[in-house]
Amino acid sequence: MATICAISTAYGTGGIAVIRVSGTEAIPIVDSLFSGRTRLVDAKAGTVHFGRIQRADEVLDEVLCSVFKAPHSFTGEDTVEIACHGSLYIQQELLRWLIDAGCRAAEPGEFTRRAFLNGKMDLTQAEAVADLIAAQSKAEKDLALSQLRGSVSNELAALRERLLHFTSLIELELDFADHEELEFADRSELKILASEIETKLTNLLRSFRTGNAIRNGIPVAIVGAPNVGKSTLLNALLGEQRAIVSDIQGTTRDTVEDTLILDGILFRLIDTAGLRETNDTIENMGIERSRQAAQKAQIIIYLTEPNPSPFLKGRELEGIHGTILEVVNKCDLIPGVSLQGETNGSRLLHISAKNGDIDPLKNELVRIAKESMQTSAVMLSNVRHYEAVKRAHEAIERVQQGLASELSGELLSLDLQDCLSALGEVTGQITNQEVLSNIFSKFCIGK
Amino acid sequence: MATICAISTAYGTGGIAVIRVSGTEAIPIVDSLFSGRTRLVDAKAGTVHFGRIQRADEVLDEVLCSVFKAPHSFTGEDTVEIACHGSLYIQQELLRWLIDAGCRAAEPGEFTRRAFLNGKMDLTQAEAVADLIAAQSKAEKDLALSQLRGSVSNELAALRERLLHFTSLIELELDFADHEELEFADRSELKILASEIETKLTNLLRSFRTGNAIRNGIPVAIVGAPNVGKSTLLNALLGEQRAIVSDIQGTTRDTVEDTLILDGILFRLIDTAGLRETNDTIENMGIERSRQAAQKAQIIIYLTEPNPSPFLKGRELEGIHGTILEVVNKCDLIPGVSLQGETNGSRLLHISAKNGDIDPLKNELVRIAKESMQTSAVMLSNVRHYEAVKRAHEAIERVQQGLASELSGELLSLDLQDCLSALGEVTGQITNQEVLSNIFSKFCIGK
Repeated sequence: MATICAISTAYGTGGIAVIRVSGTEAIPIVDSLFSGRTRLVDAKAGTVHFGRIQRADEVLDEVLCSVFKAPHSFTGEDTVEIACHGSLYIQQELLRWLIDAGCRAAEPGEFTRRAFLNGKMDLTQAEAVADLIAAQSKAEKDLALSQLRGSVSNELAALRERLLHFTSLIELELDFADHEELEFADRSELKILASEIETKLTNLLRSFRTGNAIRNGIPVAIVGAPNVGKSTLLNALLGEQRAIVSDIQGTTRDTVEDTLILDGILFRLIDTAGLRETNDTIENMGIERSRQAAQKAQIIIYLTEPNPSPFLKGRELEGIHGTILEVVNKCDLIPGVSLQGETNGSRLLHISAKNGDIDPLKNELVRIAKESMQTSAVMLSNVRHYEAVKRAHEAIERVQQGLASELSGELLSLDLQDCLSALGEVTGQITNQEVLSNIFSKFCIGK
Repeated sequence: MATICAISTAYGTGGIAVIRVSGTEAIPIVDSLFSGRTRLVDAKAGTVHFGRIQRADEVLDEVLCSVFKAPHSFTGEDTVEIACHGSLYIQQELLRWLIDAGCRAAEPGEFTRRAFLNGKMDLTQAEAVADLIAAQSKAEKDLALSQLRGSVSNELAALRERLLHFTSLIELELDFADHEELEFADRSELKILASEIETKLTNLLRSFRTGNAIRNGIPVAIVGAPNVGKSTLLNALLGEQRAIVSDIQGTTRDTVEDTLILDGILFRLIDTAGLRETNDTIENMGIERSRQAAQKAQIIIYLTEPNPSPFLKGRELEGIHGTILEVVNKCDLIPGVSLQGETNGSRLLHISAKNGDIDPLKNELVRIAKESMQTSAVMLSNVRHYEAVKRAHEAIERVQQGLASELSGELLSLDLQDCLSALGEVTGQITNQEVLSNIFSKFCIGK
């Protein structure tokens, strides 16, 4: 396999930059440009060497080279990481010298792709590398790291192994098809197993909602009548003047979005137009958007004023699936109201967005988010995994139906194979070039 | 000295990022957060270790730690370089964990400052690190690298050593002031030495013009009558439509600047207003700026059309110190003219900016720039060095005058001390906190 090279650190000028070189010829190629106390071709694995990058009589830079040897490297190949001075000129020139010396510029994700192809990690782990690099919050980092360390793979591998055992028994039956009464695979055991697998896959599919929310931010819609202070609340949560605030009903028309990290969890806040009857066409479009935002949100902050008309949970909250938080704003106007959360035995939260007294609400957002994360130890967060697990789920349902209607082993076997193959796609045991290219093209270069 | 930490790679999301930790406690502090096959406190110098950054039950990332031990590190202190995944969240969180564990966030340039304080490099070399990181072209990189490798220091150290010898002999005379005839220091030898030093310092001061030009780009002014194609030439050199071009005289008013790298050398091109008599106030201000640009430029492209009125080198070129290149443009209009440079024995260059036939001019720019670089092996490129060397030069001139007028050893000694001290400031043998702070505050954090 060709020896590849790329700048692995962020683009720009820094104190230092790291250029990674991987492949059979990585060590001799870098060595041909390196002069230091030790020759890199004689260096032990896992050692760092100071020296100059030099070609004929031109010195490019003074660098540190770390040497790794197959299979004990990220890619599983011989690898040299060159830490040079972080000038853009030096970085690009070093890349050019390496290419002149026989390397090829790496494609996006090619180092991780090689790690996958060399069996250093499965596909979910490779994908976790990209997620880890993109992580913006603790929850996101934890999710990616757990996936990198094999949580999704292990969960699916265990299911797959047991299914595989049963499938081979059923296929054994097919080989003895003449003996009709012969059943190697105990149908009642298979029923139990299929039901177990169905349950696990259902849980995994459900976890995607949370997993995906962790990656992209948990959507929180702020809805309510006009002028209850929705935009003021958004600004208070963000700690900046993000949305325009005025006393005029209908100030907010477009939905205003921004993200907020609370206790390591990324929330995507959506301020919406006030819900009311109006003849203003633009405002009505805004109100329609508010409804849609509320329907898609995982948490809905239903904001009202003190002593409101009863919460209108009729039409306003149609089609809502998320958790609704009933929040009374403007509590600074009524002296003596406790801001400590629940009062009078109801589940109302009392806040004052204007004065920044919003801690009860923040705590509640974090509590709800964490609760949803605890429902499953392993979470799907990747659309590709979700789709494959969904196909596996459909196949196992067909297996269950087949067992119920005493389908022949031959037909059962087809659905079992479908399920196995869908599960195998997630971890990359079964894959194709196109899927791989699609996955790794989303990586940054240098990883 | 406190243990410091900083992100050393460029700001942003990348495949990997490197966090540098330096100080007496660097290894135990990182080790307290690290779990891998080897404990870092047991690791050999110059080795790399894979493991997890972990605190209580939270894993932050999987990382590579390179361990360096005093005095064999960049700073001269114990150092650990942690290569983590390049998520901004992970980078910042790791920094926070290190600070919680007892590190302090490094100030700009603090690693290099420690390298200086620990005697790993002198001040000119420390400054060269910043220049190397900022290098945009080969010439700039070569200049910084030569300075990093001690060219300026060595040149000055040799001069300083010989002066020091003489100064001590003269001071010995002062101790025996009663014996008037006693002269330990041979005055005629001192005259020769002072003259040698004066010449070297003069050359160094001269080299600053080029050294500074290499760092900031060699200024090249394009001047000439209106409509000879100055802006077209600028665009052709840059390979883009940088300046507005029209048939109307006086199109360019403001000087238009941009940089261009030819053969590894950075040029700063300045397109100017056409030189002519006009009553237009704004245009006249532009023409005045053209004259100023020409006066400051190191190379002046004096552009004209074929069969021009003779070059007007009278008023137009007053106060010019740079090299003047006489260039005939629009040679596409006269068939049969060779574009190969000199014709008819004159030194005129013939080009066609419109058709992009400008290679003779490009070659000439590179030739002139290289010629100026060869005049001195060691070049000053730093204003601080220039000012100190200038003071040393003034002091050595006073020594020369003193010797000529047979000044007493006591007075000679004062001027010799001034010269020594000025030279010592350049390399940092003599320095103060304020100068150091000023130098290192210009560094990026993490270097």
